[in-house]
Amino acid sequence: MSLPPPVQPLSESMFALTLGLLLLAPLAIAGIALVNAGLGRSRSAAQSLLGSVTIVSTSAIGFAVVGAAFAGAASHTLWLAGKPWDLLGAAALFLQHFTAAPLQSQLATLFEFVAVAMAAIIPWGSGADRWRLPAGCVSAAVLSAFLFPLVAHWTWGGGWLAQLGANFGLGAGFLDAAGAASVHALGGLSALAVVWIAGSRKGKFPKEGLATAMPGHNAAYILFGCLLAMVGWLAWNVAGAVLWLHTAPNALVVTAINTLLSASAALVATFTVTRTRFSKPDASLCANGWLAGLVTSSACAAIVTPMEAILTGAIAGIATPLLVELLELALSIDDPSGAISVHAFGGLWGLLAAGIFAPRPGQFVAQLVGIATLLGLIFPLVYGLFAVVNRIIPFRVEPDGERLGMDLYELGGGAYPEFVLHRDDSYR
Amino acid sequence: MSLPPPVQPLSESMFALTLGLLLLAPLAIAGIALVNAGLGRSRSAAQSLLGSVTIVSTSAIGFAVVGAAFAGAASHTLWLAGKPWDLLGAAALFLQHFTAAPLQSQLATLFEFVAVAMAAIIPWGSGADRWRLPAGCVSAAVLSAFLFPLVAHWTWGGGWLAQLGANFGLGAGFLDAAGAASVHALGGLSALAVVWIAGSRKGKFPKEGLATAMPGHNAAYILFGCLLAMVGWLAWNVAGAVLWLHTAPNALVVTAINTLLSASAALVATFTVTRTRFSKPDASLCANGWLAGLVTSSACAAIVTPMEAILTGAIAGIATPLLVELLELALSIDDPSGAISVHAFGGLWGLLAAGIFAPRPGQFVAQLVGIATLLGLIFPLVYGLFAVVNRIIPFRVEPDGERLGMDLYELGGGAYPEFVLHRDDSYR
Amino acid sequence: MSLPPPVQPLSESMFALTLGLLLLAPLAIAGIALVNAGLGRSRSAAQSLLGSVTIVSTSAIGFAVVGAAFAGAASHTLWLAGKPWDLLGAAALFLQHFTAAPLQSQLATLFEFVAVAMAAIIPWGSGADRWRLPAGCVSAAVLSAFLFPLVAHWTWGGGWLAQLGANFGLGAGFLDAAGAASVHALGGLSALAVVWIAGSRKGKFPKEGLATAMPGHNAAYILFGCLLAMVGWLAWNVAGAVLWLHTAPNALVVTAINTLLSASAALVATFTVTRTRFSKPDASLCANGWLAGLVTSSACAAIVTPMEAILTGAIAGIATPLLVELLELALSIDDPSGAISVHAFGGLWGLLAAGIFAPRPGQFVAQLVGIATLLGLIFPLVYGLFAVVNRIIPFRVEPDGERLGMDLYELGGGAYPEFVLHRDDSYR
Repeated sequence: MSLPPPVQPLSESMFALTLGLLLLAPLAIAGIALVNAGLGRSRSAAQSLLGSVTIVSTSAIGFAVVGAAFAGAASHTLWLAGKPWDLLGAAALFLQHFTAAPLQSQLATLFEFVAVAMAAIIPWGSGADRWRLPAGCVSAAVLSAFLFPLVAHWTWGGGWLAQLGANFGLGAGFLDAAGAASVHALGGLSALAVVWIAGSRKGKFPKEGLATAMPGHNAAYILFGCLLAMVGWLAWNVAGAVLWLHTAPNALVVTAINTLLSASAALVATFTVTRTRFSKPDASLCANGWLAGLVTSSACAAIVTPMEAILTGAIAGIATPLLVELLELALSIDDPSGAISVHAFGGLWGLLAAGIFAPRPGQFVAQLVGIATLLGLIFPLVYGLFAVVNRIIPFRVEPDGERLGMDLYELGGGAYPEFVLHRDDSYR
Repeated sequence: MSLPPPVQPLSESMFALTLGLLLLAPLAIAGIALVNAGLGRSRSAAQSLLGSVTIVSTSAIGFAVVGAAFAGAASHTLWLAGKPWDLLGAAALFLQHFTAAPLQSQLATLFEFVAVAMAAIIPWGSGADRWRLPAGCVSAAVLSAFLFPLVAHWTWGGGWLAQLGANFGLGAGFLDAAGAASVHALGGLSALAVVWIAGSRKGKFPKEGLATAMPGHNAAYILFGCLLAMVGWLAWNVAGAVLWLHTAPNALVVTAINTLLSASAALVATFTVTRTRFSKPDASLCANGWLAGLVTSSACAAIVTPMEAILTGAIAGIATPLLVELLELALSIDDPSGAISVHAFGGLWGLLAAGIFAPRPGQFVAQLVGIATLLGLIFPLVYGLFAVVNRIIPFRVEPDGERLGMDLYELGGGAYPEFVLHRDDSYR
Repeated sequence: MSLPPPVQPLSESMFALTLGLLLLAPLAIAGIALVNAGLGRSRSAAQSLLGSVTIVSTSAIGFAVVGAAFAGAASHTLWLAGKPWDLLGAAALFLQHFTAAPLQSQLATLFEFVAVAMAAIIPWGSGADRWRLPAGCVSAAVLSAFLFPLVAHWTWGGGWLAQLGANFGLGAGFLDAAGAASVHALGGLSALAVVWIAGSRKGKFPKEGLATAMPGHNAAYILFGCLLAMVGWLAWNVAGAVLWLHTAPNALVVTAINTLLSASAALVATFTVTRTRFSKPDASLCANGWLAGLVTSSACAAIVTPMEAILTGAIAGIATPLLVELLELALSIDDPSGAISVHAFGGLWGLLAAGIFAPRPGQFVAQLVGIATLLGLIFPLVYGLFAVVNRIIPFRVEPDGERLGMDLYELGGGAYPEFVLHRDDSYR
């Protein structure tokens, strides 16, 4: 990897720290899964959470069997314009000979296991209430076996985005400290593809009048999920700093503090924006803002100062509610979890901010190249592959399924069989 | 302990790693408690969770006062057939002189504190909706003070099962890498004892027709609990590998990955089996399958390769829904949490698989001896002791309690006093 | 700091352990936030949890910008009676030059970030169902920018309470091993101030007859939150022992075990007391008891033996339900979360117990001085500052808000829009 200082092997204590943190980080997945379920409707809550567990499973198996080989450090390289362009990993399939790899590579692969599961559940929240579970699983398999490994190899596995530094003098090459690109931008852009392919929920955009508000069915899940996600994220960003930036111990504590400050500033910003616009703060949008602050921090928490973390977080928090509104009202995009604004925008903004605040010349350009690649190359690829999946296994549930709810239709039973629920006339 | 390489003291970094992981592992207890509550009825949800907290407390105190002494490494040994048979620990009561013990023993005891709490809440889920709280607490005390320490000493404290290697050349002796025997098999077999003693819920097996389906009251708790349990389990299995198998750092990362893969493969298998049998995947059974995969991994995640982890997990995931059905339909066993299939079968299968995949000659026989001991010696002992407890403090709630729900009857108030619940005619 | 042995720099492994634990500890915040939401009413659940997230954010920013400077080790010192009295920290604002500080100071600041967020959400639970969100945020800002740093500097930053040992031979000076003073006593006393200023909920104390019982709306949140809080607490107490007591590795494992035992004994004690008094155990009070045991352990888990941990926990568990009743019935204090009994009493009792069981002469007196300072100096200061805030931003919601519920009034939507809720006549 084209990273600045000659990289020494991890000390045993740094190995212990990073391993421990990577086993704590999946809390973020549990948190996001709960947020997604809370932001959906009660008639789809079991399908939402079963979907999250299934997608975690599918993506873990897909990554173990194929994906890790494409993401790994060994590589297929093309020579172009007198420079090596490393395009795809070429490690052993099935995680063979894993224990023989250096500890640092082992941890990198574990990081990617957590990352791929996280990336794969992000679009699931956006497809809530109408994306069919089998289609979601197949998409997760495609994402984990091919799409995620591509981005991960390019940024973390010594691929051509990482080589931008060595090849073209652009800073340290494209930097993605903790998955802002390969998890959040990828996941958020996949969410956009899903929403476009699956269409909006029935009744969301009536022929006349404004879009219908469809509030999440459980604000407690949403907001508690936010707190839980934070715990995982703190561990995640610090582990990412060790693995991908080779951050020294004296800059790890501030990485954690910056993560918290970025989320905090984003929440306060969204709170203020929604209070100003709607006279009351909006709980769901505040949750989105908080998560956008976390997403942003995944790119830059290990790079910025605390005050810069507050600034970058606040910008994410201001943009998130405006973007959610823009997508909904101007573009008629029905994204129940707000993943496009939270993860795609938050991730891309964080990558840009990392370029702004990183001290190396050319870093900003490297980040721009990375962002352009995600938008111009990866997004069409995702969209195309998902469109193919949609041909074989339709994304959109039958109208009956939407009327009954995904739980009854796909699982044969609701999530809360003993609770009395309001009828919903808009669905009849 | 009769483990292969001469054991060196833990390095300070491995001490730090293991301590950190053991403080993360109790998340699995929180997850299982939530799963159990979700799988029961809404009228018993508070009793279920208060029971879990109380059982954790009772078992922690019981283990501190008495149990740890029986589980510890110092021992009562019997000479038989020219061989030492170490039958029961003989450490100091009340955790006296604890800080003077070597760090590795201290961590082993902490591991057992988490393990005993986990073992004790497993049967609680199976007794849902009719097992009285006082009886549950006393059973937990018996389990933590005597039953768990017995198994723990035999396998981890240098007891006769661990000595099978040194005494009879059976591999490294009976191997239980992370509680598959002393937590899951013991807990699951205790669940069977409880279900037999307490009987099935009223209305579960009507005089005519099939068993009544009694779906859990909150699928979100169940499935979110599964994700949370996974986080604890990852930490748990890696800590177990360090403590009980003396796994080197280069094989710890794969232990975590195997844990995830085992659960993932099990979930996918259960998903497929239930979808094939009932045309729709069953959310509760999928949760059971996922947990069975985790349980299986507690025996073999540190021993197998990733592909073997997928295989062993998949077998657990195929067996779980079939076993749940078999117990319910063929044997009229009413196990709301599925603990017998998940923990007893999953644990025993994992122990067997560890014997199949472990490279040492005789290991398979050692595992068989351990499994036979659990089934032939420990289960009758559990059943007998619980039957005695039942004489003194009846397990089964009065009919009134079952009609009202455990919450109202035992705690004087429901878990969700402001929510409107469906009436349940089957209980009237 | 006036702590006994000459303090060596942390080894890299102890740094790794402490950092990992501090990133796990915020689970306690997530747990407490969930407990608070569960103990309130369903019509305020979203406001409760959004409030917790917002308060975490506000206090993190307040502490980063100003508070950390006041809490830090550099100081403003006054000479009085021939002794130095260190009154206020004087480190750099905005966390400047943070990465240049020694690792141990960096970790101390991270510890305080978690601590201040925890302290700030404690009163939030007591103001449930009537404390306005904007007032809660401003109070959190005051707490994080000034009040918490004051206590933290005095005890952890080398302030005059810590100097009691060096200056007056009182043991090792005032000892607060893991926030019993600066988090729990401060948070609990702030809760008392809030309850006095905001008044009791409408209908809580009718003109005639006894106080109205207003059970929490979700016992599952409450009890699951307790289990989650435990996980965070285990990490928290061990991290505190390393940072503030310089506990050696051989006494860290027992710190974790004591934390569990203290909570367990407290739970069993509260269970027994409430069962004796009301014939049935009370789930909410049991949760309070469990948490009080955890709070107590924050002062003394690293100091006592396991049996002493059981004893101190049991005393907290006996006192909690009696105190809750006393405050409610005798003093007409409406504290929905029980924070005054749990955190203020639990914290102060723990600090006293640390003095009783600590081996050093004069330690008991040092603890008494600290407790007297909290009660006689800090509480009036909190009350005074909060009363000023109340003048500017009224604490109490308008009567309409109480009738509608905080969710509808402050956020414009309920937490559970699809669930049918019981009407509540007492609120009409």
